[in-house]
Amino acid sequence: MKAPVHIAVLGATGAVGVEVLKTLERRNFPVRKLTLLASERSVGKKMKFKGQDVTVEQVNPESFKGVDVAIFSAGATRSREFAPHAIKAGCVVVDNSSAFRMDADIPLVVPEVNPGDIKKHKGLIANPNCSAAILAVPLWPLHQAAKINRIVVSTYQAASGAGARAMAELENQSRDILDGKPAKKEILPHQIAFNVFSHNARIQENGYNEEENKMVEETRKMFHEPKLAICPTCVRVPVYRAHTESVVIETERKLTAAEARKVLLKAPGVKVVDDREKNYFPMPIDATNLLEVLVGRIREDDTAQNGLALFISGDQLLKGAAWNAVQIAEMLLEK
Amino acid sequence: MKAPVHIAVLGATGAVGVEVLKTLERRNFPVRKLTLLASERSVGKKMKFKGQDVTVEQVNPESFKGVDVAIFSAGATRSREFAPHAIKAGCVVVDNSSAFRMDADIPLVVPEVNPGDIKKHKGLIANPNCSAAILAVPLWPLHQAAKINRIVVSTYQAASGAGARAMAELENQSRDILDGKPAKKEILPHQIAFNVFSHNARIQENGYNEEENKMVEETRKMFHEPKLAICPTCVRVPVYRAHTESVVIETERKLTAAEARKVLLKAPGVKVVDDREKNYFPMPIDATNLLEVLVGRIREDDTAQNGLALFISGDQLLKGAAWNAVQIAEMLLEK
Repeated sequence: MKAPVHIAVLGATGAVGVEVLKTLERRNFPVRKLTLLASERSVGKKMKFKGQDVTVEQVNPESFKGVDVAIFSAGATRSREFAPHAIKAGCVVVDNSSAFRMDADIPLVVPEVNPGDIKKHKGLIANPNCSAAILAVPLWPLHQAAKINRIVVSTYQAASGAGARAMAELENQSRDILDGKPAKKEILPHQIAFNVFSHNARIQENGYNEEENKMVEETRKMFHEPKLAICPTCVRVPVYRAHTESVVIETERKLTAAEARKVLLKAPGVKVVDDREKNYFPMPIDATNLLEVLVGRIREDDTAQNGLALFISGDQLLKGAAWNAVQIAEMLLEK
Repeated sequence: MKAPVHIAVLGATGAVGVEVLKTLERRNFPVRKLTLLASERSVGKKMKFKGQDVTVEQVNPESFKGVDVAIFSAGATRSREFAPHAIKAGCVVVDNSSAFRMDADIPLVVPEVNPGDIKKHKGLIANPNCSAAILAVPLWPLHQAAKINRIVVSTYQAASGAGARAMAELENQSRDILDGKPAKKEILPHQIAFNVFSHNARIQENGYNEEENKMVEETRKMFHEPKLAICPTCVRVPVYRAHTESVVIETERKLTAAEARKVLLKAPGVKVVDDREKNYFPMPIDATNLLEVLVGRIREDDTAQNGLALFISGDQLLKGAAWNAVQIAEMLLEK
């Protein structure tokens, strides 16, 4: 694809869409033309891009004529509806939804992990689930170094994963509770302010929820390790927009904490934050707005043969969604 | 010890002390006389007990004359200073601090786990760390049923573990952030409102923090399993007063999720909250004010030989402190 390009953003007014625009600006992405698409509700809304107002248009099957690349962040139903039209029009779709991620002939990509898979695309590249993307960035270099056999992970997931309205709900509930009023639940099924709950995704037959099963299946697909053992517990916490994860891995080859740290210090997309003296480690408020995934609490776990524990945090809206999509789009450009 | 008793509460005005009084009332503990003790700062303060005002007195070496049982919740330094005087006066101390927990000849007790150890006391019984106490209640019956070989646990710990002022800090920071002001840090080293951070306890030589090492050592001591393998990650979350824990265990004997549930339904001090259909599981706002530890997300982890995963939540101020102490005091009474 030759730069500068005509880029379209579907779901432009959503939590992720807004970050896609900011990330295109921040990365100085070579945009020739920008088309903002959304459902009827947001049509006519104006959004700023590089100081200019861009009007949101209603998406329709004809929206993708002449578009080089489209970033979809409007949910699985819309992706299923409009991706075929976009592909037919010759556009390459980077899809943030779960619609196509596990399709065998669709690449699922975190550029730090499996950039080579981008080349196999047939018009659509899927962006992974946010928790899986954030987990993959620091684990991939460790997998390369010592082969990971098992991952046990517990997440501390932000409200942003459920969209802008869930972020507002966290704010509104916090305000109400501080004012002595009851917390109103409209988006999330349980109170999110001053509370913690098992992720609201539907529990599936194996006893794991959909979010947990996505983490397992998508990590396996990106790592090209169809049998990688992963035991996840996904949990929501009252944080706005960065996901944190407590991770314990078991590797084929022994990896000392010092070796792991060395590997992570050189790894792309990773920032080591691991100051034992100052008790300063990855925190979601620090990961917010960063493109990198923070990693710390790097320590050996001697309750397993070759155990290693980590604590990571990454911006759900950026590495978990918008930045990963823009990064894929960058790789589609001819060098 | 013959009921009704003369009971003293040291640290009566602290977050735990307040809950000790409430729990004594709630349990209708047979109190003949109540002595409230604290440091100079709180002397003269009046607290309600069964509708009566009780005046807080300054603790001194003579405070324990005629006292049958004293619950200490004023930190390790004060416990070390005053426990010898209390014991000498013939009083039995139930100590909430970490001062004596790991002493070989001091019983460390969660009544649901090792009530028999109470009898071995020589004037002092230690109450475990809150995270360890909450973990022990649902894990002990599973250990009895199938022998636990390894525990991987990540915590979601409330502000109350750092005292009443940390709870107030969570409230104040939340209010300030919602008002667009910066969060003031006075008690906790990192912002607690809308954030998550690795527990603020000092990192020790093995790379684990003091809180994590307490969970390991104290669980081993209570379970009488000096080599039990435990890999903990302790994390603070913006919740007021109940700790939640994501737990993965490996057992000697295979325990299906159905069997584990059956064991837990009959276990003392445990309440099973595990509704997959409604996506309703243990939450700290539900565990608040309960004497029981909630347990749910009971599911097999087939990434380990005999793996089982759980999600638990217990009131840090009650089962993690005040209630466990009152419960021990109840067991000291002659039947």
